[in-house]
Amino acid sequence: WHNKGMKEKNKFITLSEAYHGDTIGSVSVGGINIFHEKYRPLLFDVYKLPSPYLQAVKLAGREKALTEETTKKLIDEVEEFVFKHHQTVAGFVLEAGVQGAAGILPFPKGYLKEIERICREYNILMIVDEVATGFGRSGKMFACIKEDVKPDIMALGKGITGGYLPLAATLTTDKIFDEFLGEFGEAKHFYHGHTYTGNPVACNVALANIQLFEEEKILEKLQPKIKLLEERLKEFLELNHVIDVRQYGFMAGVELVKDKEKKQPYPYGERTGFKVAKAMLKRGIWIRPLGDVMVIMPPLSTTEEELDYFLVSLKESIIEVCGN
Amino acid sequence: WHNKGMKEKNKFITLSEAYHGDTIGSVSVGGINIFHEKYRPLLFDVYKLPSPYLQAVKLAGREKALTEETTKKLIDEVEEFVFKHHQTVAGFVLEAGVQGAAGILPFPKGYLKEIERICREYNILMIVDEVATGFGRSGKMFACIKEDVKPDIMALGKGITGGYLPLAATLTTDKIFDEFLGEFGEAKHFYHGHTYTGNPVACNVALANIQLFEEEKILEKLQPKIKLLEERLKEFLELNHVIDVRQYGFMAGVELVKDKEKKQPYPYGERTGFKVAKAMLKRGIWIRPLGDVMVIMPPLSTTEEELDYFLVSLKESIIEVCGN
Repeated sequence: WHNKGMKEKNKFITLSEAYHGDTIGSVSVGGINIFHEKYRPLLFDVYKLPSPYLQAVKLAGREKALTEETTKKLIDEVEEFVFKHHQTVAGFVLEAGVQGAAGILPFPKGYLKEIERICREYNILMIVDEVATGFGRSGKMFACIKEDVKPDIMALGKGITGGYLPLAATLTTDKIFDEFLGEFGEAKHFYHGHTYTGNPVACNVALANIQLFEEEKILEKLQPKIKLLEERLKEFLELNHVIDVRQYGFMAGVELVKDKEKKQPYPYGERTGFKVAKAMLKRGIWIRPLGDVMVIMPPLSTTEEELDYFLVSLKESIIEVCGN
Repeated sequence: WHNKGMKEKNKFITLSEAYHGDTIGSVSVGGINIFHEKYRPLLFDVYKLPSPYLQAVKLAGREKALTEETTKKLIDEVEEFVFKHHQTVAGFVLEAGVQGAAGILPFPKGYLKEIERICREYNILMIVDEVATGFGRSGKMFACIKEDVKPDIMALGKGITGGYLPLAATLTTDKIFDEFLGEFGEAKHFYHGHTYTGNPVACNVALANIQLFEEEKILEKLQPKIKLLEERLKEFLELNHVIDVRQYGFMAGVELVKDKEKKQPYPYGERTGFKVAKAMLKRGIWIRPLGDVMVIMPPLSTTEEELDYFLVSLKESIIEVCGN
């Protein structure tokens, strides 16, 4: 927008509970207070809309949170906000279908697609963070494909090399690329080059990784495992201290609370999620809890037997720590 | 300072013409307008002091720019500023003896050491960027050693793996590390973990690189080459279109101008530095100009013969493009 002479379009719309990384720019567009509060004086100002999942639960309850009707309610709120502010908005930054670091909070059905429509309508760049969801985690190669969405800018990392070597990529459209072309002296140039950009060894690992996706048919083989995860997750809701179970492709979150009826969380200092993770470690599984949400994010190459062992172990560990 | 309860200490002192990278945080503490101007609305506010070299030239002329007397004049200005603002200053961010991306602008003699003294005196963290100077480039393993300076935070990158794989490191003192220790629930934790942090393959490359420094005695072998560079650079000042030659360890800048007497630069659109770089390419050497400053930054393993060929080629190329 700056190169187009629309310098007033310089703010971003972001979502509460978002997580996009730990540099000052990505913290600025992030919305997790415990990670970000100390850095407030350094962050730039953003427009913040509510987390789609949390807002959906508030408006329609847990059972109907992910339906299309709930999406409609959420989108009305978004549209009203955007109508008011779009002239100062450069881009809408969001994760691609699920807020991962917030505790695996999936977007309601059709939400991402509706955000795309609004961005098009109001001349706002749609900036999608597929660092966590990209390269198979959603069940498709990219979550955007799953949702039939074409963002203007897409951020990639993590799975791009299967996690073996550091590499990240920012994809964009020709339209945006071309805005940085010009005669020498116009200074339209995109002055951002990092020392390790395009590292040949890391790029080769990424190419090998993509080749594995094709040769080993990783995405096809993933589908029954996603199905299995879905079916087996239902059992967890029967546990007395599990209040919510959320899945997005081959990632899921199992949320623990002290009292299910009263919706009363465990006290922060008790570190319940951490204790369950320690119980998992005894069973040979390393799992990272996000507070009291047990995160299930196994390698894509996990077998059905391993997945079964994982889920049995998680159930046992929860009962061991929380009782049943 | 936040963890210590001194929340008002949250601003940074930075130097004009500084370059610390291209993320929003590092652009905020950077001072090169052509790289940074477009991102102004996203940057946080800093205190900016003048570039030591440029200010030294202004106060004492090119000949006396790097002397200790000039440092004294500069430091008086810094001290006056810090005296006024130190209660709101968290840290002083600067490169380690030379502003590299600005065109190889070395600090006057003793400047870095004096900044250390001021930081100690006024309870300001000294944050030194050794990304460019670290791992031998200055002639010592780190430029801070050369200047007998102990910063509170040191940023490393580039040379840490010899440039082969992406790795960066931020070193700090026990004193700062300990400020992030506390009981669970106090939330003193340093909530900054990047996915690729501590990548085992990249760390191994770094260890191999450090081993090479020891086995091949890289620093010892570098000294005569730095000496050779110093002697041979003098010849460049004899050229009609070379106004300044600056060296810091095994890096140097040769600055071209249209008219040396009138101190008149080449017009921006003429891309003189770029043309000299193209002339170098014909001689088999890839060199990156910074505007009209020809940057000399050969691999540490360059032989004296190669260095000689490089310097002869650069002289020829300058004469070819600029005339003599």
